[in-house]
Amino acid sequence: MRQWSVPELVAGCVSAGVGAVGLWRDPVRGFGVRETAKLVAGAGLRVSSLCRGGFFTAADPAGRAAALADNRRAVEEAAELGADTLVLVSGGLPEGDRDLVGARRRVADVLGELAPWAAGHGVRLGIEPLHPMFASDRCVVSTLGQALDIAEQFPAREVGVVVDSYHLWWDERLPAELRRAGEGGRIVSVQLADWVTPLPEGVLLGRGQLGDGSIDLRGFRELADAAGYRGPVEVEIFQPALWARDGGDVLREVVERYREHVE
Amino acid sequence: MRQWSVPELVAGCVSAGVGAVGLWRDPVRGFGVRETAKLVAGAGLRVSSLCRGGFFTAADPAGRAAALADNRRAVEEAAELGADTLVLVSGGLPEGDRDLVGARRRVADVLGELAPWAAGHGVRLGIEPLHPMFASDRCVVSTLGQALDIAEQFPAREVGVVVDSYHLWWDERLPAELRRAGEGGRIVSVQLADWVTPLPEGVLLGRGQLGDGSIDLRGFRELADAAGYRGPVEVEIFQPALWARDGGDVLREVVERYREHVE
Repeated sequence: MRQWSVPELVAGCVSAGVGAVGLWRDPVRGFGVRETAKLVAGAGLRVSSLCRGGFFTAADPAGRAAALADNRRAVEEAAELGADTLVLVSGGLPEGDRDLVGARRRVADVLGELAPWAAGHGVRLGIEPLHPMFASDRCVVSTLGQALDIAEQFPAREVGVVVDSYHLWWDERLPAELRRAGEGGRIVSVQLADWVTPLPEGVLLGRGQLGDGSIDLRGFRELADAAGYRGPVEVEIFQPALWARDGGDVLREVVERYREHVE
Repeated sequence: MRQWSVPELVAGCVSAGVGAVGLWRDPVRGFGVRETAKLVAGAGLRVSSLCRGGFFTAADPAGRAAALADNRRAVEEAAELGADTLVLVSGGLPEGDRDLVGARRRVADVLGELAPWAAGHGVRLGIEPLHPMFASDRCVVSTLGQALDIAEQFPAREVGVVVDSYHLWWDERLPAELRRAGEGGRIVSVQLADWVTPLPEGVLLGRGQLGDGSIDLRGFRELADAAGYRGPVEVEIFQPALWARDGGDVLREVVERYREHVE
């Protein structure tokens, strides 16, 4: 809901009967973290997650330190907002680097510092695997299996995984990996968007409205249910055509689509 | 080398010292299959593969029959060209269909008819897994593991797999699956392109020149070597910027890049 300010977003959720909302750091910091926390709590809304930390694949000490510092701030913001979960997008390959395995190893290494610290602030980290088309420039963690391989190096109360239909729908191992995630108590967030083509240039803003694409969203939600997930489900659609419309209309449409294609 | 006619392509390969060439059906049929076969053989060139058959995920009998008929023609063309391998791209989801598992099952089903028939013509089928970003509209077979799961339902002399760096580089299971493919004698073709971002709209024409992107191409080739692959390596780059240049220049550049980044 990029077209909405934080107060509009809070009012819009309340008016649409939506009880939990995922927030993004930039607009929250723009409005003020404390002010947002007050507004959200006053409206009886729950912050399902804060998006996002991560981007800690830097190979140099300065880059690593800067990423850690920024992620500590993100944890503090999540704590102040009362968000259980900070969503982490790992980051891509450093410029000129072709070593995916090494970059994935550095993600686990940074978490070794960040995760206990975050747990001390009451915030759980959620590793979000992104679609393999983002492996080079955004997220070297491409599958739920990879995310779990990293998360399981830490206690489940410190590090979990974020499962997003858009990123994972194509993976034949998804049912098995969701079971594994559920059994380990690792699912910290479930996110939804549909897969639509053609993908736009840069592919980031190609997420589709629920029901417009190729994903069996109900099947995805049922897998998460079967894995024991009982938390809120976030609908996350980056799409200029939706941002250009009235926020209330879009939110009502999302709720309708959710009822039709997910519930 | 879309800028070249078939005779230009043959002459260009000979002049650049390239001993084998992958051909595409459309230009070959435009020039004439028999004429192409004669020209290629006369020049002492080997046809490493014919691209492509497949697109047999149709759920209706008429669509299935049409796909089979077209693939039989493709097999005959491959046989006439002396190509060992017909590359298969499975096809995406039928319009409105969200059942990836069912579509993958239909691929195996059609192969049950096509594969023995192709073997009778001396042509081996190569299932090519495409990057997961093509799962909905082009190829429901997204990983080497999936391709092998299908291929292994048939004798190795009938059905193998095509491994393409662009489609598979992100997959942490690649080393293990390449070993599996090699042990089963399943690798029928190795193809290379680099991964460059941002991806263009529609993403199909985003393949990068060797060395321009994020893939450890030498590592990829070494994995194929270690898996026992000794056949030709095809460089396959769909990219308008390359097609706009002089064909001879591009081919020379490809040979140079191959020496620098692959050999």
